[in-house]
This record gives sequence, structure tokens and C-alpha cells, in this order.
Amino acid sequence: MTDWLDELNWNDDGLMPAIAQDFQSGEVLMVAWMNREALRLSSEQGRAVYWSRSRRKLWFKGEESGHRQRLREIRVDCDADVLLLQVEQIGGIACHTGRRRCFFRVLKDGKWQTDEDIIKNPDEIYR
Amino acid sequence: MTDWLDELNWNDDGLMPAIAQDFQSGEVLMVAWMNREALRLSSEQGRAVYWSRSRRKLWFKGEESGHRQRLREIRVDCDADVLLLQVEQIGGIACHTGRRRCFFRVLKDGKWQTDEDIIKNPDEIYR
Repeated sequence: MTDWLDELNWNDDGLMPAIAQDFQSGEVLMVAWMNREALRLSSEQGRAVYWSRSRRKLWFKGEESGHRQRLREIRVDCDADVLLLQVEQIGGIACHTGRRRCFFRVLKDGKWQTDEDIIKNPDEIYR
Repeated sequence: MTDWLDELNWNDDGLMPAIAQDFQSGEVLMVAWMNREALRLSSEQGRAVYWSRSRRKLWFKGEESGHRQRLREIRVDCDADVLLLQVEQIGGIACHTGRRRCFFRVLKDGKWQTDEDIIKNPDEIYR
């Protein structure tokens, strides 16, 4: 029934990184991890469900913040060990810091420099 | 001198995934791994240098194939454990299968379906 899950190369922990990319702007928003259950649920529900390595449980993205990710497409790479999701980011904020995306630091003059503003105070997101 | 390398959260193997994104089209081309040396060299030389986990050595992307990646930008995410590279893909082929990008399979009707053509025969790339 779910043969397509067996065709993937899960790592020793049964996980795989998943890149979430904004389906319109092409911006890479974040990277999180999925296990088989997370990917199966994502596919079935049409929304991003990850595996939280720190909390060791399924992470229904946006459950607390409302910042869900609607799934437009799921891709896998040649080695079948990285997923690429095209998502519609509800609320326009993917990062827990309140920014549009997690990649808000750029290497410049030998330093990591933040070049993206906080759209919403995290305290307001996670009440 | 290289403090910015110390600010990153390398995994237990001293590695970190790096996403290569086409700086013009925004297309996610591939994901590979870097260690400190690979990232330092990438930054210094302005080209993508990865760490090959299978060959256990530095992988100067394009050394054999000519398909180098000129670096336009290096970003890191909020957890400082994933890199995002904006690259100019020389030759237009990032994947070792001879395709433009590694993410050439999409989940459709419960199957992984290839929707991207081989531009160049791999035998011609790796002579």
C-alpha cells in the first residue's frame, strides 16, 4: 500500500531531512526531519508533518502557531535520502524566531550577519 | 580567524548538510555535506567544496565533470545546522545522473515519478 515509503533511504534513526520551499517565491524556508509516519501523514493530509528530534514526537507544523504549511508537491533526490517540499506557508512565517524563513543569516566579511527582520514577536506566536 | 566556523552546530560526525540552490531560477539543485574544511575552502575559493561521505574525502564539485558551482552566497539557518548556498551551476547539470537537478522524482498517484530529462549521458560526464 505504501511501497513508495520503502523506496526511500532512511538514515540509521529512520529519518530524512525535508526542505520546505515556498511554492511561489522559490525561497527555501526551512529544513526539518521526517520519519515514515510523518511523511505518510504529510502525504495523506496535504500539510507538512515533521518529526521533532528534540521532542521526539510528530510535529504537526503550525499546530501551535497557526503557521501551517500546505503541501503542493513532494520530491525526492537521486539518492532517495532528501525530500523537497513545495509548500504554501500560511501566515508567511516559517521560522520559530518570527521570521519569514530560517535562513536569515548570511556570511559577509567573515561574519554571520542577520539580514531579515522579525515579522512577529515569537511571544505572540507561541502563547 | 575563522570564528564563524565555530558558531555552527556540526553534527557528531563534524558534518552539516548544505543545500545548493540556483541563484537565478531559485531551483533547489542538490544537497550534499560539508565539514569545517569543506566550508572554509568553499568560502575562500568561491566555489562549492563538499565532503563525500562515501569516499570519505573532500569533494571539489565539478573536478571531474567540469560542472563546478560558483558560490554567490552562503547562508545558515536559525539552528546553525543547515547551510544554504546560492550557486551558479556551470554547465547547467548538478546531478551525477546527468540531470539539471537531483530532485527529478515527484510523488504522484502514490508513486515516485521521474519528470526531468537526462541532459547529458553520465558516461560522457565522467570519462
